Amino acid sequence: MTFDLKSYLAHQQTRVQEALEKLLPRTDAMPPVLHDSIRYSVLAPGKRLRPILVLASAEAVGGHSEDVMKTACALECIHAFSLIHDDLPCMDNDDYRRGRLTNHKVYGDAMALLAGDALLAFAFQLIAENMDTAPADRILPTLHLIARASGTWGMVGGQVVDMQSQGHDFTPEILQYIHAHKTGALLTASVLAGAMLCGGTKAQIDSLKRYGEHIGLAFQIADDILDITGDQDKLGKPIGSDEERDKATFPKLFGLEESRRRAHEEVRLALTTLESFEERAEPLRAIARYIIERDL
Amino acid sequence: MTFDLKSYLAHQQTRVQEALEKLLPRTDAMPPVLHDSIRYSVLAPGKRLRPILVLASAEAVGGHSEDVMKTACALECIHAFSLIHDDLPCMDNDDYRRGRLTNHKVYGDAMALLAGDALLAFAFQLIAENMDTAPADRILPTLHLIARASGTWGMVGGQVVDMQSQGHDFTPEILQYIHAHKTGALLTASVLAGAMLCGGTKAQIDSLKRYGEHIGLAFQIADDILDITGDQDKLGKPIGSDEERDKATFPKLFGLEESRRRAHEEVRLALTTLESFEERAEPLRAIARYIIERDL
Repeated sequence: MTFDLKSYLAHQQTRVQEALEKLLPRTDAMPPVLHDSIRYSVLAPGKRLRPILVLASAEAVGGHSEDVMKTACALECIHAFSLIHDDLPCMDNDDYRRGRLTNHKVYGDAMALLAGDALLAFAFQLIAENMDTAPADRILPTLHLIARASGTWGMVGGQVVDMQSQGHDFTPEILQYIHAHKTGALLTASVLAGAMLCGGTKAQIDSLKRYGEHIGLAFQIADDILDITGDQDKLGKPIGSDEERDKATFPKLFGLEESRRRAHEEVRLALTTLESFEERAEPLRAIARYIIERDL
Repeated sequence: MTFDLKSYLAHQQTRVQEALEKLLPRTDAMPPVLHDSIRYSVLAPGKRLRPILVLASAEAVGGHSEDVMKTACALECIHAFSLIHDDLPCMDNDDYRRGRLTNHKVYGDAMALLAGDALLAFAFQLIAENMDTAPADRILPTLHLIARASGTWGMVGGQVVDMQSQGHDFTPEILQYIHAHKTGALLTASVLAGAMLCGGTKAQIDSLKRYGEHIGLAFQIADDILDITGDQDKLGKPIGSDEERDKATFPKLFGLEESRRRAHEEVRLALTTLESFEERAEPLRAIARYIIERDL
């Protein structure tokens, strides 16, 4: 019997969506407009890749995914925060995201700024609330890792170097830095979070760290490729924007063919890291394969 | 022998400054310009009120202030994050802060946005690193409280309502909400953090919570008054900006004289909450008195 990723993803997306609906600040609490703005962006249709990785990694080490749901939702909040701020006029100045108007186009720049800020703080609140279902001495290192992956040692650091590289020559090392930090760090943190909260062994954590790094890189290369070859309707955003902004990308440095080869190679490496895991890691394996099955 | 607040503050400011210098991301680490921008704002001369409250409250319950230094520095990072974002063109659009150019005037809007984001993430990283000197089951509730006080249930929530009140009529309830959330929440969290990390009793925590709320309100009323009567050179920012922005303030609602009376009353109430504390709480008492001694 082969694992049915499509129904697995649909099932987990529904669970994450329901949990987010329940956990996010309600629009009848002060200040309503801020909570409207937060819910507009976080609850917009999305793949929920980061929270699903948290749940799948909890399952891979034999834990209960229900026990890590708050941390899973926190990862989606951090992702949403980064998208809201990235879209602001002083950053990428994007009008559309996931096929809908961006947050600041609906709520104004100031509210979008504050919605992002509130989401980042709320994410750490949620992780700390995981106390109900996980011991404090597992939560704290997990939270530490996620904080590092969100800030200058991860996502924000990658964003800065990405911004600085636009319109300039760049080396493979700079490209590697951008991808590992801007997207890779938070994806890896998601994969590790579920396993750490559920008491994964040191060997399991080490393997999952390498799994996260490989799929993070594969995912970003795939994103670079789709920005050239993708379908605007499916992606929910205009294609060709990397080219327009003269961004540092894999196809620009290595060409499309070599980029595709590298994406496949990263997925192959990701799968080897899971060799010692049992059938419980099947969702993680299927997610890795799925990254390069998206019409590259 | 009377307690010498001036030398106490100078001593603690030096300790906090040295700790921040050491803990903040270095400018020889990637990405240097982000770390320059972060250090420019955080290390600018300031009162360090929030970190000093963390240290003083640790001492008030018999703890070692050295053990809570990382959390103290985290509170200053959260404060700096809020100032950088408040000053942005889409918010207050301020050119000067603490007598120097604001972050975005030096580094540009995008870098200032990302420096604020990175600082908020870094703050939670620092609090989690307090693991070296405090047990995880004390740190986690403290971190949870600080996260709540930073986001929509605290500082950001107050900021949104403050923004919405500009140019509109407002009630005493709205004014109270703004002050309790925008400034009060983080000051109260600072006071509680030191005591919680050092194992303060429930009774001590309850008293310190009320202390924090009273000095938070006194502090904000004093700020409102100084924006009218203050000395631009001492404050390091232009006076009259609340009036210009038609902000909700105490003097606007109650007049200067009644506002002064209320600030004094809040300080008196703050002092009564410390009655059961011994001489170790003398710094907290002196800090409360100091708030209304600033040329109101």
